[in-house]
Amino acid sequence: MAQLSVSHRLRRTPFSDGVTAAGAKSFTVYNHMLLPTVFRSVEEDCAHLKSAVQLWDVSCERQVELRGPDASRLMQMLTPRDLRGMLAGQCYYVPIVDETGGMLNDPVALKLSEDCWWVSIADSDLLLWIKGVAYGLRLDVLVDEPDVSPLGIQGPLADKLAARVFGDSVTDLRFFRYGWFEFEGTDMLIARSGYSKQGGFEVYVPDTNIGMPLWNALMEAGRDLDVHAGCPNLIERIEGGLLSYGNDMTRANTPHECGLGRFCNTQTAIGCIGRDALLRVSMEGPIRQTRAIEIDGPAVPACHDYWPMMAGDKTVGRVSSAAWSPDHQTNVAVGMVRMTHWDDGTELVVQTPDGPRGALVREQFWHG
Amino acid sequence: MAQLSVSHRLRRTPFSDGVTAAGAKSFTVYNHMLLPTVFRSVEEDCAHLKSAVQLWDVSCERQVELRGPDASRLMQMLTPRDLRGMLAGQCYYVPIVDETGGMLNDPVALKLSEDCWWVSIADSDLLLWIKGVAYGLRLDVLVDEPDVSPLGIQGPLADKLAARVFGDSVTDLRFFRYGWFEFEGTDMLIARSGYSKQGGFEVYVPDTNIGMPLWNALMEAGRDLDVHAGCPNLIERIEGGLLSYGNDMTRANTPHECGLGRFCNTQTAIGCIGRDALLRVSMEGPIRQTRAIEIDGPAVPACHDYWPMMAGDKTVGRVSSAAWSPDHQTNVAVGMVRMTHWDDGTELVVQTPDGPRGALVREQFWHG
Repeated sequence: MAQLSVSHRLRRTPFSDGVTAAGAKSFTVYNHMLLPTVFRSVEEDCAHLKSAVQLWDVSCERQVELRGPDASRLMQMLTPRDLRGMLAGQCYYVPIVDETGGMLNDPVALKLSEDCWWVSIADSDLLLWIKGVAYGLRLDVLVDEPDVSPLGIQGPLADKLAARVFGDSVTDLRFFRYGWFEFEGTDMLIARSGYSKQGGFEVYVPDTNIGMPLWNALMEAGRDLDVHAGCPNLIERIEGGLLSYGNDMTRANTPHECGLGRFCNTQTAIGCIGRDALLRVSMEGPIRQTRAIEIDGPAVPACHDYWPMMAGDKTVGRVSSAAWSPDHQTNVAVGMVRMTHWDDGTELVVQTPDGPRGALVREQFWHG
Repeated sequence: MAQLSVSHRLRRTPFSDGVTAAGAKSFTVYNHMLLPTVFRSVEEDCAHLKSAVQLWDVSCERQVELRGPDASRLMQMLTPRDLRGMLAGQCYYVPIVDETGGMLNDPVALKLSEDCWWVSIADSDLLLWIKGVAYGLRLDVLVDEPDVSPLGIQGPLADKLAARVFGDSVTDLRFFRYGWFEFEGTDMLIARSGYSKQGGFEVYVPDTNIGMPLWNALMEAGRDLDVHAGCPNLIERIEGGLLSYGNDMTRANTPHECGLGRFCNTQTAIGCIGRDALLRVSMEGPIRQTRAIEIDGPAVPACHDYWPMMAGDKTVGRVSSAAWSPDHQTNVAVGMVRMTHWDDGTELVVQTPDGPRGALVREQFWHG
């Protein structure tokens, strides 16, 4: 923990007043925007997320809007995932890669129509890449950041809460589908999605001014459901194997290394910028890959830096995220391990700031 | 102030150990990297900066390297500043604009040779824009982020300190010129530049591993000069009229609005992406512009949001940065004001979180 100096450059969100009133104890900065990280404690927030319902200010998942006749063509250039079968009303998780196959972002793309897409981004200025490509290729498309701020409704009681404010039909949404719902006369896109394994929705709030009225209405409607302000939870997202761009993967990694090979259709994603580089990877396979890692002993300290993973004297990987899991009574972690040592059950040693710890490579995450 | 949750995504720097040991009290996040903001207090740091010498960890000024036969052509595409007369050994402050003339960044460009440039960036992932344009136009150039971290030596005693570590010849450098100097067998680019008006250098440290040895050598050599760890100082930079990308200007602004019209050679910067849009602005002039603003009364609170500037009932501008200046015994601020009210001496009212305050529009900043 350190002190954060706030300035206009670290943008506030439509829900910042609600987040502050709810007692956010700590923040990070994500897409030049404040993202709360802790309300009560990471452990308490985790237990509550798994048992009740939370409102998440994830405004920092900024939207990049692609609009115009070339929007769909451009969208396919950005990702190795084949988008041909995708319909309006669907959300796709799409690795975005550069010409070398390096990950630039791992957003969720929403197809609004053939000529309009929203890309709900992780922490990099993906707008600049998309604008640059569109400019260089003289594509007939406008690329911009609309005034749209996602608000997460996450947890097992999310359906109950959402139904009270948006009507029962919102619960008919299938996973990674969206629909349009009204709140106080404003139409909002709501998707069944979110950065947790506890289920729920993301409301794409289309106007800063409606942010706090919606926040307050949800808080009010969920009082007996024990609704509370929350945020992406370090423990829960590691248990569930949800990767964090910038933490667990960077431009140095291919999607295949990150375990995202199933989202790469290098044979059919025609036009994808990184296709040639990734075709090679998809044929030969990556030589290191993301794995769940179980770290022995008491709670590890916060993971600020890569922790080397050793087999004897040899560095064979690194841990990028780690936390103590009260539910699993072990330290859960995300690591990247060389193929020589990535098999399920491999025992390694992790160099933590507190000294070496035994660690177990797992093929599966814990899934909360 | 708020708590900051640190993770690997908020990158540490080669000098982070030194910064922590020196007692950094607060940080911001800049280009996904930690940037200290306060050591003793903003006021004390300011007074010390004006009287002694400070080491600044400005690693967050990441470099984008353009390398290849098309590097110079690409560089000119990025900025409306005419680069034809620029020689290796020079640094230019270059507004970077998109096709609409909107500011994407305001870096310092260093010409290493005809086919190699470093762009020392402000807070946006400019790498992505440059890579996107280069890809789209199939330019023969590699765009990447090298392992280069700037270390500032700022303050009136900067020459004395730099000479002790790099030799007397470093003091021969003229403003915005650079040369190559050796430290422990490693050649380093050193420029006479920096984000203060107190003079000094920026050392482009070309290898993470040499970071702390250099930091320690400078600290040791400057003991009798009262050298101290420091950082860009809010008060001093406002007094000096140094704008902050993300705070005082965004993609919504043209360079002309930001008072950077003198860096726009729209008649001669042939190939500049935003040239057509800016030619129009340069002929007609902007309708709002950055101004120094003096705010009455006691110290204003921290400026987290735009503060509206009013003439009667009419909003005619906004303040984006503000601080109490002990030297000038007034609140110094940066604002953007409509042309109807931007003349020197215009009296306005600023809506601060503490209530309305009288304010004076000034044509000139205070220059520390």
